[in-house]
Amino acid sequence: MVKAYLISTGTELLLGSTLDTNSIFLSRKLAEIGVKVIGKSVVGDNPDSIAMALRMGLAAADMVITTGGLGPTRDDLTKEIACEVAGVDMKLIEAEEERLRDYFQRRHRAMPEINLKQAMFPEQATIITNHFGTAPGMYLPLKNNQVIICLPGPPREAEPMYENYVKDLLIKTYNLTDRRSASRIIRIFGPGESQVEEMLQEVMDQAHNYNLALLASEGEINVRVTAEGKDYNESVVILTKVTEQISQIMGKSVFGYDDDTLSAVVGKLLDNRNRSLAVAESCTGGFLGKMITDIPGSSKYFWGGVITYSNQAKENLLGVRSATLQEYGAVSRETALEMAWGVKRLAGTDIGISITGIAGPEGGSEEKPVGLVYIALVGDNLEQVREMHFVGNRNGIRTLSAKSALDLLRLQLL
Amino acid sequence: MVKAYLISTGTELLLGSTLDTNSIFLSRKLAEIGVKVIGKSVVGDNPDSIAMALRMGLAAADMVITTGGLGPTRDDLTKEIACEVAGVDMKLIEAEEERLRDYFQRRHRAMPEINLKQAMFPEQATIITNHFGTAPGMYLPLKNNQVIICLPGPPREAEPMYENYVKDLLIKTYNLTDRRSASRIIRIFGPGESQVEEMLQEVMDQAHNYNLALLASEGEINVRVTAEGKDYNESVVILTKVTEQISQIMGKSVFGYDDDTLSAVVGKLLDNRNRSLAVAESCTGGFLGKMITDIPGSSKYFWGGVITYSNQAKENLLGVRSATLQEYGAVSRETALEMAWGVKRLAGTDIGISITGIAGPEGGSEEKPVGLVYIALVGDNLEQVREMHFVGNRNGIRTLSAKSALDLLRLQLL
Repeated sequence: MVKAYLISTGTELLLGSTLDTNSIFLSRKLAEIGVKVIGKSVVGDNPDSIAMALRMGLAAADMVITTGGLGPTRDDLTKEIACEVAGVDMKLIEAEEERLRDYFQRRHRAMPEINLKQAMFPEQATIITNHFGTAPGMYLPLKNNQVIICLPGPPREAEPMYENYVKDLLIKTYNLTDRRSASRIIRIFGPGESQVEEMLQEVMDQAHNYNLALLASEGEINVRVTAEGKDYNESVVILTKVTEQISQIMGKSVFGYDDDTLSAVVGKLLDNRNRSLAVAESCTGGFLGKMITDIPGSSKYFWGGVITYSNQAKENLLGVRSATLQEYGAVSRETALEMAWGVKRLAGTDIGISITGIAGPEGGSEEKPVGLVYIALVGDNLEQVREMHFVGNRNGIRTLSAKSALDLLRLQLL
Repeated sequence: MVKAYLISTGTELLLGSTLDTNSIFLSRKLAEIGVKVIGKSVVGDNPDSIAMALRMGLAAADMVITTGGLGPTRDDLTKEIACEVAGVDMKLIEAEEERLRDYFQRRHRAMPEINLKQAMFPEQATIITNHFGTAPGMYLPLKNNQVIICLPGPPREAEPMYENYVKDLLIKTYNLTDRRSASRIIRIFGPGESQVEEMLQEVMDQAHNYNLALLASEGEINVRVTAEGKDYNESVVILTKVTEQISQIMGKSVFGYDDDTLSAVVGKLLDNRNRSLAVAESCTGGFLGKMITDIPGSSKYFWGGVITYSNQAKENLLGVRSATLQEYGAVSRETALEMAWGVKRLAGTDIGISITGIAGPEGGSEEKPVGLVYIALVGDNLEQVREMHFVGNRNGIRTLSAKSALDLLRLQLL
C-alpha cells in the first residue's frame, strides 16, 4: 500500500476561520488511485515547522504533498525548505522565467523581481505547470522511491494541477492503477442515523474488501461505500453487490446515489409523469420553492407558489377560511389541507403541496410545541396530511420541513 | 507567547469526508486566551503516528491537545500513548470506575469490562469530567511547564469539556488572562474582495497590534479584525478604533458586525420603521422569502409573497400584462416593475420587491446572458429597478440575486 502524508502551510489555516480544503480534496483523489493518506499536518509560515513536518512525513510515508507557500513573498518558503530537507540545490530555470514574464506581460503589468524565485527549481524536479496563477508546482523524486510534491495553496490552482499532472506522475512512479478503488454514496431520507446504523450493522460487520461510512447531513443520511478489490473492475463488482444489498435493506428510503438531491429526484419524477406542481409555504417562507428551483429546468413542472407567512395571506391568496384559522389555528391539519387545495386551485396544477408549522424559537405552546409541522399533499384522487415533530433549531426545523415535503411527494410519485 | 499544538486522531478524518471541527473550535478558543496554535496534525488510529505527532508537538509547543481515541475499543489508544510519551504509568481510579458504572446503570445497561480502561489515569493527571459520554479527558502536566491534554472526539463532548474545565486549567497553568485579544467581524455587501482589499490597504499596512483577515463568502466580504493589546481592555480600545476607521472607509457598504445577517439587519429596519413587505420571486424561486424568514419574528413585517416561476403565474397572480411579457420578455426592467407593483397591490403592504433573471446554466442568450437579473423595489413615492450582471453558477447567481434585493431594500430604508 502506497502511503502519503499531507502538509498544508499557511498561518490563516491555524486561526480556525479558513478551511483546509486542499487536504480534503487530496485525500479523496489519492484514495481513487489506491494511495492511503496516513496523516496530515497544518503548519504556519514557519521554516522550522515546515521542515519538521516534512521530515515526519518522509519518515512515515512514500510521498509528502505540500500545499501553500509557493508565492513570491518572503513568507513563501515551502519549496526552499523541501529542497533543503531533500538536500538538493535550486537554479533559475529559463523556460519558467519566460513563462512568468509572459504571464505578467499578458496582464500588462511589470514582473516584480521578487517573483523570479518562482522560476527556481532543482534539476531533478519535474515542474508542474500552473495554468491559473504564477506559482508552478514541483514533483521532486528522492532516493528510495520517495517523492516530495509541492502545490500552491489556492484550490482553483492546486486541484487542476493534481488532476492534470500529479496524478499521472504518481501512477507512473508507483505503478498504480488509476482508480483502483470504487466508491458510491447511497442517499437516504427518513430514518435517523442510529436507525440506519442498526439496519446496516450486518453489512458493516461483514465488510472486509469494502467499508461503509455514515454521514448525517440536514436530515439526510449518506452512506459512502468504498470497495477495494485487487483492481478497479473487481472493486466495481464488489461495490455493485454491496450497493444492492444496502438498497434492498433500506428500501424506499433510498432516494438516490452520489450527487442526487431530493429536489432533482422529485423533479425527474414529476417530469417523467408529466405532473405540474405548486407550493404554499408558511413556516418555510419560500425554502421549499427555493429547493425545487435549485434544479435547472424546473420550470417544466414547477408553476410557482405562494409564501403565505401571515394569516391574511392564507385567507386572501389561498382562500383558507377564517373559521378554520380560528377554530384549528394556522398550524393544523385543517389549515394545511386548505392551503394545499387553495394553491392547487389558484395555479391549476396537478398537485398542490403545503407546509405550515412552528419553526421557533418563539411561538410554541404546550399543545403546539416548536417543531410541530403539518405537510399536506393534494391532487386528483389524492389527499394526504402528515403531522411531523421535528427536533432542532429554527434552521434545522425549516430544512427538515421542506425536505420532508419533497420526500412525501417522492413517495407518492413512485 | 504560549504555544499549542493540536492533534486530531481518527482514520475517518483522513478520508476526506469527515471534517475535523475540533481543531477549528480549539484554534478559535485558544486565541481568545492568548494561546497561539502553531501547528496541527491529523493521524489515523495508529500508535506510531500518534506517538510521533505527540513528540513533534512537544518539541515545538508548550501544550499538546489531542482529540479522539479515548473510547473503550482496541483502536482507542491516545491516552495510553500520551502516558508512554510522557513516561508515566496509569492506574485504575476508583471514583472514575464508579462514575462509569453509574453511567451504564442509569441507562439500564451492563458495563462491558472493556470500558474499565476509561477509568485508568496517571496519578499526576487531572481528570476532566465528560458530562455527555463515557470517556473522561485528561490534563497531564509534564516537566518544563508543558501539558498534554486529551479530549474525546465527539465535538458535543469535547467542546463543553474545554469550556468548563480545560480553559481554566490553562489560564492557571500559564498565568493567562481570559480573553486577552479582542476581535470583531465587519460585514460588507456590495464591493468585491479585491476592491475591499484595495480600500483597506492602508489600514492593513499600518497594522502592528492588530490584524485583518478578509473572507469572501456568498457575495459578502467579512473583515475579521483581531486586536492584540497588552490586556483585554487595551485590545478593546484598539479594536474600537480600527473598526471605526474601517467603517468610515467602507461607508454604507458595511451592513453589520459579527453575527449580523442582511436579513436580520433589514428586518430590524423594517420593524423600526413600521413598514410591511411582500416579495415576488421568479428566478430565485422562494430564496428571498426563505432568507427573510430565517429571522424569528419576521411575521411582524413580512406578509409573504408569490413565487411566479412561470409566466402564467406572473400574469394570473400578479397581473403582469401579457403585452409586457411579449414585448420585453420575463427578464426585463418592465416585468420586474409590474411584478413588484403587483405583489404590493395583492398584499397591501408598504413595500413590494421583485426579482426576475436568468440563473442558468441554460436559458441565456447573447442579448440576455446568464447572470442578467432585474430587481425592482416599489412603495409610496418609491420606484426603483436595478439591472445586475452576476457571474457564477446557478446557486451563486441566485444567492447574489436574493442578497442584492435585501441590500437594495436596506440602502433604501437607511
